Amino acid sequence: MKIMHHMTRADFEKAQDNVVVLPVGSTEQHGPHLPLGVDSYIARGISEILSERTGAIVAPTLTYGYKSKPLSGGGPLFKGTIDLNGKTLIDLVYDILCEFARDGYNKIFINNAHFENQAFIEEAMDLACQAFPKLKVVQSNWWDVLDNDTVNKVFSDVPFPGWAFEHAAITETSLMLFLKPELVRKNLIPEDVKAKALPYSVYPARKEMVPECGALAPSKGSSAEKGKLIVDKAIEGFLKIFKDEFNV
Amino acid sequence: MKIMHHMTRADFEKAQDNVVVLPVGSTEQHGPHLPLGVDSYIARGISEILSERTGAIVAPTLTYGYKSKPLSGGGPLFKGTIDLNGKTLIDLVYDILCEFARDGYNKIFINNAHFENQAFIEEAMDLACQAFPKLKVVQSNWWDVLDNDTVNKVFSDVPFPGWAFEHAAITETSLMLFLKPELVRKNLIPEDVKAKALPYSVYPARKEMVPECGALAPSKGSSAEKGKLIVDKAIEGFLKIFKDEFNV
Amino acid sequence: MKIMHHMTRADFEKAQDNVVVLPVGSTEQHGPHLPLGVDSYIARGISEILSERTGAIVAPTLTYGYKSKPLSGGGPLFKGTIDLNGKTLIDLVYDILCEFARDGYNKIFINNAHFENQAFIEEAMDLACQAFPKLKVVQSNWWDVLDNDTVNKVFSDVPFPGWAFEHAAITETSLMLFLKPELVRKNLIPEDVKAKALPYSVYPARKEMVPECGALAPSKGSSAEKGKLIVDKAIEGFLKIFKDEFNV
Amino acid sequence: MKIMHHMTRADFEKAQDNVVVLPVGSTEQHGPHLPLGVDSYIARGISEILSERTGAIVAPTLTYGYKSKPLSGGGPLFKGTIDLNGKTLIDLVYDILCEFARDGYNKIFINNAHFENQAFIEEAMDLACQAFPKLKVVQSNWWDVLDNDTVNKVFSDVPFPGWAFEHAAITETSLMLFLKPELVRKNLIPEDVKAKALPYSVYPARKEMVPECGALAPSKGSSAEKGKLIVDKAIEGFLKIFKDEFNV
Amino acid sequence: MKIMHHMTRADFEKAQDNVVVLPVGSTEQHGPHLPLGVDSYIARGISEILSERTGAIVAPTLTYGYKSKPLSGGGPLFKGTIDLNGKTLIDLVYDILCEFARDGYNKIFINNAHFENQAFIEEAMDLACQAFPKLKVVQSNWWDVLDNDTVNKVFSDVPFPGWAFEHAAITETSLMLFLKPELVRKNLIPEDVKAKALPYSVYPARKEMVPECGALAPSKGSSAEKGKLIVDKAIEGFLKIFKDEFNV
Amino acid sequence: MKIMHHMTRADFEKAQDNVVVLPVGSTEQHGPHLPLGVDSYIARGISEILSERTGAIVAPTLTYGYKSKPLSGGGPLFKGTIDLNGKTLIDLVYDILCEFARDGYNKIFINNAHFENQAFIEEAMDLACQAFPKLKVVQSNWWDVLDNDTVNKVFSDVPFPGWAFEHAAITETSLMLFLKPELVRKNLIPEDVKAKALPYSVYPARKEMVPECGALAPSKGSSAEKGKLIVDKAIEGFLKIFKDEFNV
Repeated sequence: MKIMHHMTRADFEKAQDNVVVLPVGSTEQHGPHLPLGVDSYIARGISEILSERTGAIVAPTLTYGYKSKPLSGGGPLFKGTIDLNGKTLIDLVYDILCEFARDGYNKIFINNAHFENQAFIEEAMDLACQAFPKLKVVQSNWWDVLDNDTVNKVFSDVPFPGWAFEHAAITETSLMLFLKPELVRKNLIPEDVKAKALPYSVYPARKEMVPECGALAPSKGSSAEKGKLIVDKAIEGFLKIFKDEFNV
Repeated sequence: MKIMHHMTRADFEKAQDNVVVLPVGSTEQHGPHLPLGVDSYIARGISEILSERTGAIVAPTLTYGYKSKPLSGGGPLFKGTIDLNGKTLIDLVYDILCEFARDGYNKIFINNAHFENQAFIEEAMDLACQAFPKLKVVQSNWWDVLDNDTVNKVFSDVPFPGWAFEHAAITETSLMLFLKPELVRKNLIPEDVKAKALPYSVYPARKEMVPECGALAPSKGSSAEKGKLIVDKAIEGFLKIFKDEFNV
Repeated sequence: MKIMHHMTRADFEKAQDNVVVLPVGSTEQHGPHLPLGVDSYIARGISEILSERTGAIVAPTLTYGYKSKPLSGGGPLFKGTIDLNGKTLIDLVYDILCEFARDGYNKIFINNAHFENQAFIEEAMDLACQAFPKLKVVQSNWWDVLDNDTVNKVFSDVPFPGWAFEHAAITETSLMLFLKPELVRKNLIPEDVKAKALPYSVYPARKEMVPECGALAPSKGSSAEKGKLIVDKAIEGFLKIFKDEFNV
Repeated sequence: MKIMHHMTRADFEKAQDNVVVLPVGSTEQHGPHLPLGVDSYIARGISEILSERTGAIVAPTLTYGYKSKPLSGGGPLFKGTIDLNGKTLIDLVYDILCEFARDGYNKIFINNAHFENQAFIEEAMDLACQAFPKLKVVQSNWWDVLDNDTVNKVFSDVPFPGWAFEHAAITETSLMLFLKPELVRKNLIPEDVKAKALPYSVYPARKEMVPECGALAPSKGSSAEKGKLIVDKAIEGFLKIFKDEFNV
Repeated sequence: MKIMHHMTRADFEKAQDNVVVLPVGSTEQHGPHLPLGVDSYIARGISEILSERTGAIVAPTLTYGYKSKPLSGGGPLFKGTIDLNGKTLIDLVYDILCEFARDGYNKIFINNAHFENQAFIEEAMDLACQAFPKLKVVQSNWWDVLDNDTVNKVFSDVPFPGWAFEHAAITETSLMLFLKPELVRKNLIPEDVKAKALPYSVYPARKEMVPECGALAPSKGSSAEKGKLIVDKAIEGFLKIFKDEFNV
Repeated sequence: MKIMHHMTRADFEKAQDNVVVLPVGSTEQHGPHLPLGVDSYIARGISEILSERTGAIVAPTLTYGYKSKPLSGGGPLFKGTIDLNGKTLIDLVYDILCEFARDGYNKIFINNAHFENQAFIEEAMDLACQAFPKLKVVQSNWWDVLDNDTVNKVFSDVPFPGWAFEHAAITETSLMLFLKPELVRKNLIPEDVKAKALPYSVYPARKEMVPECGALAPSKGSSAEKGKLIVDKAIEGFLKIFKDEFNV
């Protein structure tokens, strides 16, 4: 496993041809049972396993992300959700990508675990690739690479509410039970949660748009085993991306 | 129908309590058979019908949007796609929202017809609502308010490829056949189109990621009738939003 | 006539060597008798005639412009004037110019019909031409290309108050009577209007700096014929610019 | 005379109710006979006389301005023209205005002597007045307050070419002969200069658009007396503005 | 110890009145023997001890910082130094401070361990405190709170080269030996290092300005004991700051 | 002596290979006895002597600087301190550096006399040198080039309080007595001043952090002779820098 912040400069130079994995998370409320760092821990945990499997370098995690939205993350009205403006996230990711490119690291994989980040990360990717023509950057996340079979296995106890509502719900709870079980308050796992979807967004946010507990779907049936299954499948998907895009 | 650019200042002042509808489109290639203005025409056309039904004021359309992406709009490698940077779109929408708020128009409905715009529009909505506490802004689009039944009727001839791939395909072609038939080159409608989905985004874009024709799914079976059905259902959805959020 | 939003990608590619005309207007109060879209309609209308004569491509109009000023447009205290900040307009025009340059369209003519836009458009032109050395951009407007003879003919009934005060006055009213007569409220044309010039600018604006009706000079004697004369002479001037600068 | 940089903090505090005059110039080529600091010296020189007459505080001059344009200042292709981007000038003036407002100085007069600065200064004025509702800012310049009689007297030897072309020509040369005679190279004053007006702007600039000497009109007949006349009349105009706007 | 990313929302709400500690580090080469994460580990490690002693909440560490400079950090020419632009760091810290203030956390302590960050952090502090008048933010670092006696004890084997040169040298090496010994390559500790001070800064950087090993002073005599001493004294200093500024 | 604003364009072109010196000061309270322009006068005065000795061109002084801080300049709570935001100063210096580089002047020496400016000036230097690879920019100040012997001579009457506290104190007072004696209120020189150092920064600033008089250390024993000594030694230091970095 190659953790960039553990490596000396010489270690880093030796890995010049390796893929760099940039985990991106958030600081966001995750219901009564999960800690504020869920997205960051998941992004980081899966990135480390990916590093073990491929020798990719894990860059320091971005632990603050774009604004949580009510119907995918609970939104700004819950305390503990510390968000960046869109332009700030664009600049932050842009600067980091450019710096890796200046050092000659041209294969970057952004492992994003906070849905709301995606558009701003991609804007940064576009701008950085315009500035550094040799640079190639891929962005993915653990949920987009899962196959239907895996989804069906995970959602054996509760219906699949759609990915937007999988906030502080069965997938994130299971992932945390596998990756960081000591941070899950098992006795506080909410079982009956029901958020109502809206086919639109509205600002300013209203408290009543989100279940009071801050989760958007039930966590019933969450388990470390399901977490491991998700991680295994995500890794499988990421390895295919590495092969297709970075030829490693 | 209240078209803001047709109204005098006095007309506009009289409509102080009305909802303002801001159509947002793009300038983007739409395959061999559809013009570059598709998203703008659809956003505008539906907004005008909405105005007829509700007295809402139709503000001038934003006809340049955020960057087209290969797997939802064909991407930047096709000529004729003229895109804004993310920060520019945020600022553009922000300035406009603030100006309406300064004039005392606090009910704004953004009718977006270019998927890639959404995150940047929402960032502008958030910032404007922070600056003007009385302001309320809703953002929606024609596809998110359709029910399953409508989707099934529209996709009677071809399988539903998912909304991302409905670019220059059956829904947009049908909408244009209904709203702007004179701009559709019927003899050039591509029938067999197949884009391959990727569970990730990658920059820089590559030509081979997108079908050569620039559409992402087939338009077979497109018709003005289907276009009308979509419009009717979108209006129905928007009317419900108006009632729920603006109480009109 | 080549309206970009009517063209398919293939149409657009075939016109690769043509001049692109970018009309720039505003959303601004124009007195009791003219609609909020005057500047945008004039910029667009003249651009379309220019396209008919030269084959130039008419890009989508920018329908929001820089801040109206009291003594050239009535200013921000009238409702219906929806303005952009200076930086936003710079970025908006810059992004669009760069995108045309990226697609290989290097002859751009900006047809501006809102005086206050000019400095910000020119800043964008300078920045875009620094970024794309092959790009050439010209900016003009209908009033700067008129000869004295034309001005004398137009101002046969009222004295020429200077171009700054020709806001919602005889030239714009005549142009609208020629280009968009259905949008002129003829019975509301103000005859006696007198704004007082100031040899300075002052912020914040005060209501009493501007005639209550929002026009800055009289419209007496406005006619579609005068509008046609202005358009004809503007086109003549623009054709000379096309020849001198774009060699077409 | 109250030169801010000569004053101690106590002096400055005592003048809390006085107008603050902010001279804005440029660093720009001014033909063969005038130095690069012409605009800054003129803005400063007139401001000091204004201070003598009114007790206004002269803030430090902004000696770098917005981009010189070929047909009003010779443009960027001459060496010695060191320009700011538009956004930078907006921010610079904005920050300074806000700081005076924070200190309780709410009567600011911007004495601008570089034409190209105006739009960007006014944008800063608007933004600062939005942020500080008690702040009042006026912007003027020496040429806009001259009456026709004065113009006729100054242009007794040469025809008046319009203000845009009065670059390094009779008015600026006379002003420098009055305010800073030691900086005028009298033996290098160009007599026959003829710039050709264009009813449009074009980027990038071309050398041949501007007379080789860098002046845009002749300086024949320049004199310290004419310079004094202009200054006297400008002061007269500014005093009227002070009375009308600041009640001093 | 209150690690924010370990806390649930309810835990966080309960600690509403506690100080929030924001550790700020960097990703920067630190010679042959120390890892790229030194500044981040030190900022974090000391913050955790501070939390143990005071109940302060440790926010997620900023692990990318402002640009390393040759004579305080080795500079940009070493690989592995991944830096942010100044404006990006200002925005990043600003957004985070504002978010804590919005949630009602008004006592923030920024524990910075990368010298080059300071001016940009302070700019963010100023801007955030202007926006949120109740907010109070303190910034300090481990080296500024040490007394002379401690410095003398630490520099018993080597002369004190000044804090700027204490990069990858005895203090940072000792701190890492105490806080993260497993990340120190003891066999690679450089003993004889001598950087030459310059009374100026120069851009672009040159390789020969910095000792080849990337450290700026010797690490001879580094020990976990010295690391503990520094930490103890830093904590002592920080506790005094907490008392004086936050009254806790 | 080559004062850029005194030079014609031809003079400037002839000096193409010379170093350009950019003096950077501030507008900042300097106690009861010194004027608000101290930093600007010192930066400018030393630059002019440097020009006499080397033929370097003195560019117009930046007379507004970054925010004064309580414990190095008294801070924002004193009237007469007119400061720029950090981003504005970065942009201002960046634009100026780029313009000199565009004109082919690639040897720039920034002579800064306001401590708080440094980090923002250096950020601009870095960005400009990235944009113009031939450009070389050096930044220094009068205090960093003084040797210990000089410091000892200057501080013969009062103890050396550290450079941060040398605000409106013996060195600045002596420099003004030498460079601009007419602007020093000798009868108001404060003799007993004692600021208390803090090992941290805190926002918002508090009045009681700074001695009421606004100076941070005593001026006792200030003299024109000491001022001359400092200038001589600063020039000596700068000449060495010119030789080492610009080879002149």
